[in-house]
Amino acid sequence: MDQGFTLWFTGLSGAGKSTLANLAAIELRERGHRVEILDGDEVRQNLSKGLGFSKEDRDTNIRRIGYVCQLLARNGVIAISAAISPYRSVRDEVRRVHDNRFFEVFVRCPLDVLVERDVKGLYKKAIAGEIKGFTGVSDPYEEPHNPELIIDSGAESIDESLAKLLGRLEELGHVRAKGSR
Amino acid sequence: MDQGFTLWFTGLSGAGKSTLANLAAIELRERGHRVEILDGDEVRQNLSKGLGFSKEDRDTNIRRIGYVCQLLARNGVIAISAAISPYRSVRDEVRRVHDNRFFEVFVRCPLDVLVERDVKGLYKKAIAGEIKGFTGVSDPYEEPHNPELIIDSGAESIDESLAKLLGRLEELGHVRAKGSR
Repeated sequence: MDQGFTLWFTGLSGAGKSTLANLAAIELRERGHRVEILDGDEVRQNLSKGLGFSKEDRDTNIRRIGYVCQLLARNGVIAISAAISPYRSVRDEVRRVHDNRFFEVFVRCPLDVLVERDVKGLYKKAIAGEIKGFTGVSDPYEEPHNPELIIDSGAESIDESLAKLLGRLEELGHVRAKGSR
Repeated sequence: MDQGFTLWFTGLSGAGKSTLANLAAIELRERGHRVEILDGDEVRQNLSKGLGFSKEDRDTNIRRIGYVCQLLARNGVIAISAAISPYRSVRDEVRRVHDNRFFEVFVRCPLDVLVERDVKGLYKKAIAGEIKGFTGVSDPYEEPHNPELIIDSGAESIDESLAKLLGRLEELGHVRAKGSR
């Protein structure tokens, strides 16, 4: 049976976590893996209704995503989280419960690039103070110290990032090579 | 790949849900299935900290267990819940999100038998009013109308119950026959 693991994306809003997560999921399913994306909004709705965006509530939300990822991972699934997960300590806590089945991808993008792109118009609002506690603007983002992979989404194309990610997962034996199904 | 499903035990405290769930899990793992038991206490700790035992909080807790079961079931796992889950409407809500991959087992045992056995001494305390809102004593338990299986744990031996459960799951093609791995 397949060994599952958790693919944990972290990074600022708009850095490209979800895009990369979704493309990776499509490719991994094509290779015969079971894949489950823990969508941030869906998880908030199903597991964390009532929680807000204080540090404590964010940490609780991330712990819950981590718990579910771990349940899936130990049952052979590639569990994917693409939540911002701004705090290092709780990410590392989630890593610890995974017993080495954890692959953290830091999707790094300079703030000025994100502010310029601002696809959803959120940075503009955050800078104007219309959104409080916005990660990277008015709330902290703690970069990972030793992620399994760094994606420079401000510099790389999405195809390059995807190839880099899949290549690294193959090297580690976490996923099947293309066409090997 | 295996088709997963959720095995949902419901019934009063002490009726034998967890015992039967644990024995079924051992047997199903031996037959090569992936099995995950969503333990009530562990789930409360990980997904529902802060929730109490009001109807609303109980329902939220059950919905969360149901959500996680469904994620596991659609990824080939036999997800097992052995929470009391006293309210019919929320059990049926959980059933609906499962898209037919749901097998409800009503573990039925007359209250007087449970009070007499009272393995954990909880019924005595509940009847004395020392535990408030205890299902079956001071809080409602709504029996399922159409469970996939009824186990009469007041009358059957645990071996009989287990054989009945596994036999039915085999008949439906949900699980492999013994020795067929």
